[in-house]
Amino acid sequence: MSRHPSPLLLSYHAATELFRAGEDTPRDFLERSIERLEAVEGTTRAFAALSIERARVAADAATQRWREGRPLSPIDGMPIGIKDVIETFDMPTGLGSPTSERYRAPRDAACVFALREAGAAIVGKTKTTEFASTFPTDTRHPLEPSRTPGGSSSGSAAAVGGGVLPAALGTQVIGSVLRPAAYCGAFGFKPTFGAINRGGSHDFQSQSCIGAIGASLADLWHTVFGIALRAGGDPGHPGLFGDAEPPKPSRPSRLIVLRMPDWETVPADVNRQFESLLSACSAAGVQLLTGAAHAGVAAFEQAALDMQALSFELVGYESLWPLKTAAYHDAWGLTQRMHDRIAQSSALGREGYRALLNRRAALRAQFEALVADTDGIITLTTPCAAPIGLSNTGNSKFTVQASLLGAPAITVPMLEDGGMPVGLQLIGGQHRDEALFRTAGWIAGL
Amino acid sequence: MSRHPSPLLLSYHAATELFRAGEDTPRDFLERSIERLEAVEGTTRAFAALSIERARVAADAATQRWREGRPLSPIDGMPIGIKDVIETFDMPTGLGSPTSERYRAPRDAACVFALREAGAAIVGKTKTTEFASTFPTDTRHPLEPSRTPGGSSSGSAAAVGGGVLPAALGTQVIGSVLRPAAYCGAFGFKPTFGAINRGGSHDFQSQSCIGAIGASLADLWHTVFGIALRAGGDPGHPGLFGDAEPPKPSRPSRLIVLRMPDWETVPADVNRQFESLLSACSAAGVQLLTGAAHAGVAAFEQAALDMQALSFELVGYESLWPLKTAAYHDAWGLTQRMHDRIAQSSALGREGYRALLNRRAALRAQFEALVADTDGIITLTTPCAAPIGLSNTGNSKFTVQASLLGAPAITVPMLEDGGMPVGLQLIGGQHRDEALFRTAGWIAGL
Repeated sequence: MSRHPSPLLLSYHAATELFRAGEDTPRDFLERSIERLEAVEGTTRAFAALSIERARVAADAATQRWREGRPLSPIDGMPIGIKDVIETFDMPTGLGSPTSERYRAPRDAACVFALREAGAAIVGKTKTTEFASTFPTDTRHPLEPSRTPGGSSSGSAAAVGGGVLPAALGTQVIGSVLRPAAYCGAFGFKPTFGAINRGGSHDFQSQSCIGAIGASLADLWHTVFGIALRAGGDPGHPGLFGDAEPPKPSRPSRLIVLRMPDWETVPADVNRQFESLLSACSAAGVQLLTGAAHAGVAAFEQAALDMQALSFELVGYESLWPLKTAAYHDAWGLTQRMHDRIAQSSALGREGYRALLNRRAALRAQFEALVADTDGIITLTTPCAAPIGLSNTGNSKFTVQASLLGAPAITVPMLEDGGMPVGLQLIGGQHRDEALFRTAGWIAGL
Repeated sequence: MSRHPSPLLLSYHAATELFRAGEDTPRDFLERSIERLEAVEGTTRAFAALSIERARVAADAATQRWREGRPLSPIDGMPIGIKDVIETFDMPTGLGSPTSERYRAPRDAACVFALREAGAAIVGKTKTTEFASTFPTDTRHPLEPSRTPGGSSSGSAAAVGGGVLPAALGTQVIGSVLRPAAYCGAFGFKPTFGAINRGGSHDFQSQSCIGAIGASLADLWHTVFGIALRAGGDPGHPGLFGDAEPPKPSRPSRLIVLRMPDWETVPADVNRQFESLLSACSAAGVQLLTGAAHAGVAAFEQAALDMQALSFELVGYESLWPLKTAAYHDAWGLTQRMHDRIAQSSALGREGYRALLNRRAALRAQFEALVADTDGIITLTTPCAAPIGLSNTGNSKFTVQASLLGAPAITVPMLEDGGMPVGLQLIGGQHRDEALFRTAGWIAGL
């Protein structure tokens, strides 16, 4: 298969071999990152804040440890970006608000603290849409500045896709990790709901997750597992299951082929690439279940139709409090469009919200029953490449399903649309994140 | 029955009749609160911060609305205190840390914002133990300053029990609402887990709840329901069920009498009062299920034995991140004893934590099965009165069960121990908060 990741991707995992061999160091890696950042940031605008000197201190300490053969973790010294809805003690947390003073938290979020414990070099805060919702930032696509990088983890995707960083944290409640990762030609991973401790992150909604955008599956796994190992999952959740070693590629036995809602909007050429990928899977012995031949898959394709509307309603209701307190005190500032959104979301009410929770629970049960004896779903991450223009961050119709289902999802940069990256998406059953990485690794190698 | 609430309790609910009749106003009510506060605060030390002038503005606005017969809610104008782990935009949030700068949040927590929407007058932040854990503050018992008011919602209980406020918010992860409420002769309510939105509150643990301490059951209901109506529950939870009107007293059909662990430490005189209360229930036609006669109750009494140890381990693990980031950055400061606690909690690890979650889930299933065809559990809130001395906040052996089970619990000030208040505790099945209020109302009237 042809593959179409961003040509700029910069793997830290690959470099660690060189650290061990004494042919490269984390500090040199970081300096190349900084050099790249300085070259492109004026155009890409991926960062809301930087902490370069502190990152250098971390990279120097890591350089020493790798030299002595005792790195703290596989990401010891890795330059990483943090989405600007996640608290950091050394940089403000702006939540993407264009109108306000930026808030300075007195602490690190759980995931940031875990990254520091693992030795990572926190380079900066990456830009996000307003309150990690849909109103865009000024960040541009790293390969083609006339296009959106996607959102809401816009800066994280632009920094990784642009070869500035090997990994960056994002958060996803609708499609905010996978969509921008796919647009920017990077790998992206949204774990099972609750798998990563959200303490100190402002992604509080009931289907929100911290995830990562990275230069390779190994970079993603090391980053997310490194956090899970040190900070655990959300309180009351078992956290990410798996081992420190990146899951080895392994051929899946059976995959569900899911045609997402509005599949007819997929350009013919992208659809051809997808079909050709399916043929390659089939030829290698993977059993493919399609809606045309399997009643359960067909029923689930039907069920998927209104998952986007359902998610918008749920998330809108859950966002009322922080938006209202922001509006009242002008704490972070609020644009008129966000004021309008408050008015829309207020209509749902307690009873309406409860009914939606019940609907979501039923959809989750339907999905888990369907996926149980398979290796997951194979589909596209977006219908097409990143749209031209910065006025919106693209379509979440293909990414919202995994968010609503609380299921792990991975995007692999394998397809293209007029020369721009398009992602292949894999979705697994809850807590089967590690197995999904095995499948993703195998498919990425086709 | 004789009853032994604090003689100082000051009900806002009772006063609203007078507001309607034009014989009292919220502003006058507030001024009496402030007067009382000024008289006792030097001894009791219930407040970490005050916002008197802003409270006066709120009370004046409420006065106008009551006068015009259109109050925003039953708690419009009510003076209320907020535990100092819950964020307020107009006062710092100190988390009970004795060594640090106090953090100023740029927003109101969801529950605080809801209270403001309901018209309440936020008077101040009430003192808590260090990080709402077990190390005491300098707050004293409002009836007897040589004694602890209990913890961790120490200031909230002291302010209500001391007749300064009709209600104050607390949080409970082990016993931090019900125990201090009982010690201070007040009513206390910890709702079903998830029933009150914890956004912006630093009680993040997997069995933590926002609750209230109040001068009457009606004050409690109006406060907690008023929040639930406006801010909902935790994201993904259905929130508190019920109606705006305080649940009417209603005789329960069947109650489980639970002898808590170390029941033999209950003083003979307190036990006699408890037995006499049971006799009154029985005489009124309530069927009582005891461990002596009911195998399920006996088994549950056994199961309750290690709920305290289990809770300490769970909460310790979940508290690692915020304590570690506080320790690292000295964000809020950390005493040596908290550093020691980090070391203890680190031993559990991910696998150990998962095993404890499974144990808790099994205990919850056992409890819900037992309680399903009853009106709940009747027991004591503490074995005895508040201990003398400020070196510890008393015993959580009788309150931890409802916390671990995620179940609603109410304490009613009905018993006494050497002239000091002791609480009767009622525990219901999850989401049956409203029914538990009916039972509590009936028993309080015996």
